[in-house]
Amino acid sequence: MRYLSFEAEGKASYGIAADRGVHDLGARIGSVLPDLKSYLKALELGLVSSVATNAFADYATGDIAYLPTITVPGKIICVGLNYEGHRLETGRPKQTYPTLFARFADTLIGHGGAIRRPSVSEALDFEGELAVVIGRSGFRIPKEEASSFIAGYSCFNDASLRDFQNHTHQFMPGKNFPATGAFGPELVTPDEVGALDTLKIETRLNGDVVQQAKLEELLFSVEDLIAYVSIFTALSPGDVLVTGTPGGVGFKRTPPLYMKPGDVVEVEIDKVGQLRNEIAEELPKG
Amino acid sequence: MRYLSFEAEGKASYGIAADRGVHDLGARIGSVLPDLKSYLKALELGLVSSVATNAFADYATGDIAYLPTITVPGKIICVGLNYEGHRLETGRPKQTYPTLFARFADTLIGHGGAIRRPSVSEALDFEGELAVVIGRSGFRIPKEEASSFIAGYSCFNDASLRDFQNHTHQFMPGKNFPATGAFGPELVTPDEVGALDTLKIETRLNGDVVQQAKLEELLFSVEDLIAYVSIFTALSPGDVLVTGTPGGVGFKRTPPLYMKPGDVVEVEIDKVGQLRNEIAEELPKG
Repeated sequence: MRYLSFEAEGKASYGIAADRGVHDLGARIGSVLPDLKSYLKALELGLVSSVATNAFADYATGDIAYLPTITVPGKIICVGLNYEGHRLETGRPKQTYPTLFARFADTLIGHGGAIRRPSVSEALDFEGELAVVIGRSGFRIPKEEASSFIAGYSCFNDASLRDFQNHTHQFMPGKNFPATGAFGPELVTPDEVGALDTLKIETRLNGDVVQQAKLEELLFSVEDLIAYVSIFTALSPGDVLVTGTPGGVGFKRTPPLYMKPGDVVEVEIDKVGQLRNEIAEELPKG
Repeated sequence: MRYLSFEAEGKASYGIAADRGVHDLGARIGSVLPDLKSYLKALELGLVSSVATNAFADYATGDIAYLPTITVPGKIICVGLNYEGHRLETGRPKQTYPTLFARFADTLIGHGGAIRRPSVSEALDFEGELAVVIGRSGFRIPKEEASSFIAGYSCFNDASLRDFQNHTHQFMPGKNFPATGAFGPELVTPDEVGALDTLKIETRLNGDVVQQAKLEELLFSVEDLIAYVSIFTALSPGDVLVTGTPGGVGFKRTPPLYMKPGDVVEVEIDKVGQLRNEIAEELPKG
């Protein structure tokens, strides 16, 4: 099953990828379950049953604009230094625990949307990542039960303003500019994705491969992350864990390779999808 | 004017401190403006006018339980290392920019509530701080205009689990346990507080003064913080900036001074208020 959040005919909605198009759940049940997050919550509570994947397509895929997979997650928890190649290129010591920071929901855009380079920085870097969307409420989740808390996976580009990220030792500013967190295109359920280990994650900038790894290279696995995060904070349906980026980021290259307006960046993960975004100047009001 | 969020007769509401009690705004207009955050938004839009401070008291102060001043802020942005005494005791270098990290809204409790020490850590430390609540929407706010974006001030105890805070160089885990962010008792408007510089901030643990400073010792002023934060993220009514803690924190003492169940911690700021919380074991489900 592949869920998505989208806009069609000027209205935000959500649904499932159906035969040759999109089946619009929002048009049918949006008055009580207004977005995919609330739908996941209703699924957890057993209030709705899964929709058949051969459901009627209300829209052709070309007639919708993708929104962030989850439009307003309750929590977006990002992981740093979670591939050995990236840890080495940043010169950071080995970590006993996951390195975590937050993104605000108003940084998100969907597949096909523009990543905005702010007027105040040119150090806009790519970070292709696997995003995990939570499907069940939990606190202090044992690692061995963690996989049952996953609603599905999506691609994420944790685009970062490196100068602002390194103003201090806390990453927040460089990770929270508007329209820098690309998230999509779809939420793919674990049964469709299968085992993560052998899947390849790849970031391409203007068609050139700039990052490439296998998901087995994650230093802290998805289950490790769910177990650790839920020690200190409760997780709920629609919360997002962004699991970290492989080596190859632009700011550790000589010379640095930053994204600029007109560029096209793609994050592709086997079986999960291909997230494509153009870079554009920021809008006048951010 | 002093606003507050509270619970009375089993219902969450908000209102203003009135003559010998609390005037309940939620009972009157809560069907369209359900919480203080939405009320601040309506004030910004000119939809409501200020209430007279001699308004009828619906409840005696003793008959309400305080909720966090803003119950679910859109953004809670905390500042580290913002008093020279605290910077020195942590051994961190001087900062050119504010050190920022996020709290999730589900960490908040109000005046009189229990700060919960989690079962997984005993390193629960106090951090008395001035909280600034935003009253107007803004992005790239010039420093000289920043004061007009302040709805008011409150006290904050940014209670921290030091072991989890220092698992990596990112602070998130130690700052986001449930019921560790005490916020209150009230939102005091700038006209009542006046100039901040000469005001004293003091933290007391079981009656002993453990932190004390003047607000003029803030390394980055409230206006500096609003200007810097709004470079990268838009601010909205109800957003909260927690401005940092003075020297004296428990984990830099020999031996460390941590808070334990049964302790009483108070954060008092001249003209802003006195925030009092007991420490208790965490609840079984967090």
